Formats: sequence, C-alpha cells, structure tokens
Amino acid sequence: MAQVNKICILAVGLISGSLATALKKTINRECFAKEIIAWGRKEVNLKKAVELGIVDGYELDLAAAVQDADIVVIATPTLIAEKMIEQLKPLVTEKTIVTDVASVKGNLARKAVEVYGAMPANLVLAHPIAGSEKSGVTAFNPDLYINHKVILTPDENTDPQALAVVQNMWEYTGATVVQMPVQEHDEVLAATSHLPHVLAYALVDALAGSPDQQAIFEYAAGGFRDFTRIAASDPTMWHDISLANDRAIIKMLDQFSEQLSVLRQAIVEHDSEALMTSFTRAKAAREKFSELLKEQGR
Amino acid sequence: MAQVNKICILAVGLISGSLATALKKTINRECFAKEIIAWGRKEVNLKKAVELGIVDGYELDLAAAVQDADIVVIATPTLIAEKMIEQLKPLVTEKTIVTDVASVKGNLARKAVEVYGAMPANLVLAHPIAGSEKSGVTAFNPDLYINHKVILTPDENTDPQALAVVQNMWEYTGATVVQMPVQEHDEVLAATSHLPHVLAYALVDALAGSPDQQAIFEYAAGGFRDFTRIAASDPTMWHDISLANDRAIIKMLDQFSEQLSVLRQAIVEHDSEALMTSFTRAKAAREKFSELLKEQGR
Repeated sequence: MAQVNKICILAVGLISGSLATALKKTINRECFAKEIIAWGRKEVNLKKAVELGIVDGYELDLAAAVQDADIVVIATPTLIAEKMIEQLKPLVTEKTIVTDVASVKGNLARKAVEVYGAMPANLVLAHPIAGSEKSGVTAFNPDLYINHKVILTPDENTDPQALAVVQNMWEYTGATVVQMPVQEHDEVLAATSHLPHVLAYALVDALAGSPDQQAIFEYAAGGFRDFTRIAASDPTMWHDISLANDRAIIKMLDQFSEQLSVLRQAIVEHDSEALMTSFTRAKAAREKFSELLKEQGR
Repeated sequence: MAQVNKICILAVGLISGSLATALKKTINRECFAKEIIAWGRKEVNLKKAVELGIVDGYELDLAAAVQDADIVVIATPTLIAEKMIEQLKPLVTEKTIVTDVASVKGNLARKAVEVYGAMPANLVLAHPIAGSEKSGVTAFNPDLYINHKVILTPDENTDPQALAVVQNMWEYTGATVVQMPVQEHDEVLAATSHLPHVLAYALVDALAGSPDQQAIFEYAAGGFRDFTRIAASDPTMWHDISLANDRAIIKMLDQFSEQLSVLRQAIVEHDSEALMTSFTRAKAAREKFSELLKEQGR
C-alpha cells in the first residue's frame, strides 16, 4: 500500500480529528499520509488543531486547501456537507477522491446526482459508526475507530480504485469496513441511532416541561441515566440528521409508535400475555445484541 | 439505636439479598439485626441463600417465618406483594413492622386499605431506587444501596416509631431516605423508570420484528447499547410494574407521545426552529441531571 501524499479534511471536529490522528500513527515506520491539512471557517479552531498536532497545517481558502489533495474528507455538519459537494465541483479533478463522514448518505447521494447528473466515480460516501456526546476539536481520540464499523455505500458508478483507497484509509484506523446500498444504510441507521436520539430528546423534553421536573430528575436512577445519555448530544448535529434522513426516521418512528400503541393497549386492558410476549421477545433480542457486541470486542 | 432481634424477608432476590447482606455488615461491633431469615416457595433458592451467607436460616411456612419478627420485608414480585399483604393479616400483630421493596406503592396502599379498612399503623411502604438488569439470589451486592435513595411513603396513619425503624434500617445500608406521598412516588417513578422501560421494550421489539433485524443489530453502536440496556430487564418484573402502576404509566406515556408527535411534525415540515428548541431544551435538562448525579456521588 503506497503512502498517500495529501489529505484535506473539511472542518475539524471529533470525527475528523480522530481520523486524522489515527492516520498519523506510524505503522512499519510510515504513517498513512505524508500531509494532512484542514480547511474550515473558524481560524481559531484550525490553529488549535495544528497546535494539538491533529493536522500539519490549514487553509481558509477552500480551493487552496483541496489543491493536489489525493483525498478530500468532507467532515462538516450533515446539511453543510450537501453544500460542500456542490462547492467542490469546480475545485477538484476526478483524480481527487472525495469522501465524507456524515451520518446520512441519501441526502448526499441525491445532491451529487443533482450537481453532477450522476454519482461521480471519485465520490465514495462513508459513515464511521462511532461517536460520543462530546464534540469539537479537543475531543479527538486516535483510537476512536478501533473495532468500530465504517459503512461505505458505493454504487455501480464508483471507481473501484477510489473505493479501495477509502477502504484502506479506514482499515488503517483499526475500523472494520463494510458496504451496503445507500437506502439500506439510512434505514438501518434510522432504526439504531436516529430514532433512539429522537426518542431520548422527546422523553427528556417532555419531563423537563413537567411540573414535577425537580423530583423527576432527583429520583431518577441508572436506567434513566443510560436511556437518556444520548439526549445530551449536539442539537445542531441531530437537527441536521433529522432533516437529512427524514423519510427513514419517520418510517421507523411510525413502526415504533405502532408497537408502543400495542403495549399501551395491553397495559390498559391488563393483557398479561401481550405484555409478557413483547417484553420477553425484546429481552431475547437485546441479549442477542449484547452477545454480538461481545463477539466483536466492543 | 438498639439492635433488632429478627428480620424476615419474604423471597430472596437481588433487592432483598442485597438488603440482608448490607444489614449483616458490622458497624461498631454489631450488625443491624441478630437474625435474618427468609421465606419463599422455592427451597433450592432459600438453601442457596443460606449457603451464600445472605440469610441465617429459612422457613417454607409463612406463619413460622414471620413469628416474632420485628420487621417483615415483603420482597416478592410487585403483584404477589399485594397478596402477601392479605396473607400476613392473620399472622402478624401490630408489634411487627411490615415493609416492602416494590417499585409501585399505590397498588399496595389500595390493597392494605381493602384488607384492613385503613392503612395499618405498622405498614411502612418503601422503595429502594436501585437495581440492575441482573436478578436472582446470586446477584446480591451488600453495597448496592450506598449513595442510593430509598423513598418511604408514610401517611397520617403510619406509626412514627415504625417509620423510624424502617428509616434506620435503610440508612444502615448506606442509602439516603426520603419521604413522599404514594401518588407522587408512583408518578415520579412512572416518568423516570417505568415509562423508559416500556419505551426500550417497544423499540427493541419493533426492531426485532423488522426484516432488517440482522443488519440493525450488526451496525448498532454505543448510543443504541445504552438506550436499550433496560430492555434486558426481567419481563415478569416489568409486567407486574406495568399493571400495578398502569394509570401513572399511561399518563406519562401520553405526555411523551404528545411530545413525540410534535417532533414528528417538525421533521415532516422541516421546522428547524421547533427541532432546535426541543433538542436544546432536552440537552440542557439532561446536563442538569448529569450534574445532579455528580453532586450526589452517583
């Protein structure tokens, strides 16, 4: 695997900072890329990223930043990523591989088709399944991706060489790379990540508006803490994801609401069998999931 | 504080086993009670509890078990606890303090009024806010209650001496004891514990029934793990709680569903302001809760 000359990350935050520092680790006396630079709007953040050793340098001008880059990683918030695809069009040739780290893929694929007429061969959409309630440039962690999955969503237009480079890049960080179609990605993530965030926000917001709020939080225990941890996530990020993946989220939300109605009815009617069946099935599925996590060393 | 002669726990499990072993700890060369015995239906469990040193002995006959006990702790599943209140009536005098550890208080208070005509002076309803997805006799932990809250729900009929003894017992385990009315207890717990369990069960069951189930669990990350951890809880326990606290759970569930509808509508209409307002308010409330937990050393 030949060393890459230049990577440009667009915006420095938890995800891109962790990626850059993971790629700077030395394996067989070489790191993944000779140079990693950052572009962004807030110079103070970019300076901080250089000071912290996350990147080798920065540019405030997008054209200068991406010039001669082998790989451009779009790491802006989800909705701005759509705009970046458009802005990059006149600035990069088809030799530059463009990839991203956003949580939703459908909106970016639609935008690319709108801008280019078809999915460009050098655009490899990617989503590392890792994160934290923490965010920002100082939250980076070079080990963030070890034993985590990265989903690539290539289609028939994707250049196999570009795909291989992006796959190599993520494997270098310790991640396991898998592929699936864009729509499947967005539905799976709506189910396992986007909907749970919406539910946690809805619950905490409902309780925060309750007259009992003080007592409620005072007497909450570990289950509540775990259940609502994700409600401390960045509102802007989840606003973007909610809009970018609206269709899949609404679909999953309606499936969930249907199941919740069934449980509500079972409680109202004291239908023991219905409650036991649902709770037992859920417990079995949750335990299967725990075993899966253990097998994967997570 | 004088040492108690005999405590009888009705059924041995995580909660009562942890209580018994916490009370067996020696403070100033004495433990809380001279003798702790258990009653239950499964002799194999009771034998195991004696072998593990959780209790000093056991009885299979309820009358023999509670004879001369200073304190009887009902620790059966929630719905069976209602029956125990009835069964104990001819077996204990008003000198015996009867208490419990169930997650719902309203159903037991109603049962006591039904059986005794009014809340008996020697019945002190109690709820330790601690637990685990683990259950059963081997899951006991003498430190389970340290820095946890125990809620007592006395009313105007409660004997102040009986109340003081139950308060002393729980403080001995390291818990902080607070008091509130039965209805407030059941509403606060519906919000912070019972509803989140129903939501987690509903989500995991909805996903388990989805055709994408394999992929869903395969690509789920830490947020999903935390959010759904409580869906691995004991189905029988949560069946009982759902029925015992049905009114408060339905009330909270409807409040939650209303909030969820607002978010659904905001996603459908791409109403950025509504999403940002709700997510930001929830994040602030969740962070306040985190700080509260830290202050309490939890």
